[in-house]
Amino acid sequence: MKIDGVPYRSVWVDPEDGWSVRILDQTRLPWTVEILRLVDEKQVAHAIKSMQVRGAPLIGAVAAYGLALALRRDDSDAALEAVAAMLGRTRPTAINLRWALDRMLRALRPVAPGNRAAAAYAAAADIAEDDVETCRRIGQHGLPLLQAIAARKPGKPINVLTHCNTGWIATVDYGTALSVIYQAHDAGLPVHVWVDETRPRNQGSALTAWELGKHGVPHTVIADNAGGHLMQHGEVDIVLVGTDRVTRQGDVANKIGTYLKALAAHDNGVPFWVALPHSTLDMSVRDGVREIPIEERDAREVLETTGQTWDGRVETVRTAAPGSAGLNPAFDVTPARLVTGLITERGRCDASEAGLLGLYPEFAAAA
Amino acid sequence: MKIDGVPYRSVWVDPEDGWSVRILDQTRLPWTVEILRLVDEKQVAHAIKSMQVRGAPLIGAVAAYGLALALRRDDSDAALEAVAAMLGRTRPTAINLRWALDRMLRALRPVAPGNRAAAAYAAAADIAEDDVETCRRIGQHGLPLLQAIAARKPGKPINVLTHCNTGWIATVDYGTALSVIYQAHDAGLPVHVWVDETRPRNQGSALTAWELGKHGVPHTVIADNAGGHLMQHGEVDIVLVGTDRVTRQGDVANKIGTYLKALAAHDNGVPFWVALPHSTLDMSVRDGVREIPIEERDAREVLETTGQTWDGRVETVRTAAPGSAGLNPAFDVTPARLVTGLITERGRCDASEAGLLGLYPEFAAAA
Repeated sequence: MKIDGVPYRSVWVDPEDGWSVRILDQTRLPWTVEILRLVDEKQVAHAIKSMQVRGAPLIGAVAAYGLALALRRDDSDAALEAVAAMLGRTRPTAINLRWALDRMLRALRPVAPGNRAAAAYAAAADIAEDDVETCRRIGQHGLPLLQAIAARKPGKPINVLTHCNTGWIATVDYGTALSVIYQAHDAGLPVHVWVDETRPRNQGSALTAWELGKHGVPHTVIADNAGGHLMQHGEVDIVLVGTDRVTRQGDVANKIGTYLKALAAHDNGVPFWVALPHSTLDMSVRDGVREIPIEERDAREVLETTGQTWDGRVETVRTAAPGSAGLNPAFDVTPARLVTGLITERGRCDASEAGLLGLYPEFAAAA
Repeated sequence: MKIDGVPYRSVWVDPEDGWSVRILDQTRLPWTVEILRLVDEKQVAHAIKSMQVRGAPLIGAVAAYGLALALRRDDSDAALEAVAAMLGRTRPTAINLRWALDRMLRALRPVAPGNRAAAAYAAAADIAEDDVETCRRIGQHGLPLLQAIAARKPGKPINVLTHCNTGWIATVDYGTALSVIYQAHDAGLPVHVWVDETRPRNQGSALTAWELGKHGVPHTVIADNAGGHLMQHGEVDIVLVGTDRVTRQGDVANKIGTYLKALAAHDNGVPFWVALPHSTLDMSVRDGVREIPIEERDAREVLETTGQTWDGRVETVRTAAPGSAGLNPAFDVTPARLVTGLITERGRCDASEAGLLGLYPEFAAAA
């Protein structure tokens, strides 16, 4: 997608040196568009942990390039396994990370040392290209949902509520839930997005609002607390969110607070759809609430906020009372019973094992 | 209650001049304890609108003193009615404001000009004293709920989740929901409070955490998004919140986001109790979602946050992407079906007309 008219992806190999990895520093957005150069796996691990890159699909692609960077210096079997394991520990909840690293290991284990670095760059590029096409298709499969709403209320805005950031900067391009929104907007549908602030890291107000603004999509930032009230008053036609992991029975792990919006959608008869690529499926897990480990991040994220002063300085301020402690679970799990359906690159389905196996019959054996 | 060992109330008449009104500037908390002196009704209106004072019971008491200040200069019938109407428009959702002003008008209309200012100070003091006793009793009637939890899990903390600020600074003293917590803590129960940040104005992380810290009550600040996850994992024994208006059928208007916590409590079998003084009842309204006007505040509250930098400066920073707009509904309504019960100064009851009339038979005629 574009920033001020210039097409970008969220990760790419530097075209000048041909090997270093370029990312947008998402911790600097929306204040500054700063491009970072990553030269080894440690910088990649830091970029993932510190959320310079975030979003489940993007994390997978960047980790894949991290393995490629490491193999330039040491492409032994031992290094391959050790670096993949190290990168796999950078974020515990996103299943795409494990999926991307497993795909890299499967591709690279058979390759003789000496050829592995080049093979790793090719495999990482495949992951990135696949992600772009996957996200484009997710948008296409979600589009009919918004077209149906538009048909029901001609001339009126289609009000979509979203949580966190599922846009092109959370993937390699297009996004997941936001891919639906971008493609609807580009198709001329009158989409308006309620953007949940998404405390504690403000991925909604800082990143989603920034993306939508740059693309020209009408949107309004709201406190995470406001969505239920808007649904009670008919101001939300559909909820579209992404996910960090979907289980075999259709439970959805996503940014903390998603579960509360799903409850409100259910209570008010608002459809609640989850957009995901196949790499987000974890068919080895059934009960998401009981089985998915939830990352606990630094409590300072809850106690502090970063923003820009009126005169342009970016400052981090403590918003909580001095001396008070915080707790910062980063994700929650929305039970499948609250999910209207899933939007994948292969189409839409129920949030259930039967629904998933209808689209992904190859996963039947993994039970 | 106390600040660093010194007993305070949240509104009082200056003991030196005998007429000006003193408040804590709650927009400066938790960074600075600053006491303001209000000398006329315009300053009182500003204090309410700008949320230098907030919390439904406190707003009522301060508005009552505002009327007293105005009558010192002009105690005509016309001034009495005009100032009461002006003060009544400062915040649209809190019913206590109207209740306090109506009580003042009933007391002052029969008083001859010349005696009205003194009568107004006396009537405002009555409102303040009544509020203190009312809040003390609310705490006493809520206490058995926490004692029952303590009996079920001896030696383990009683985890209470609360939203917004319902403490002594939201009332004249003690608080409503926090009165229960203070009295349980003072009675030796091992209370631990999950403090919702309460965006956009952070009344939880800034005010509730400050109050609890000053009183020594163990607590942890969480993002508003986190409560559902904690409930799913058994980390919340009870939700205790306050309210700005309770309808005849038991619907509860409270700080935006309360409805989401009530949904999560209901979904997880966690008791959800609402603490209120009788002045918060609005028996003229039945269906809270349809009938209660919801105040919409300045969108900048959503787009910005105020806090303290590491070197002690208080700064307001824009957290949302430049150019994005916001919407800021300040309250939502929790339907009675999601409320386990109400805690009042007369005891506990169901969130229903029958429950309310059991405690307040004098309201039966107002149907």
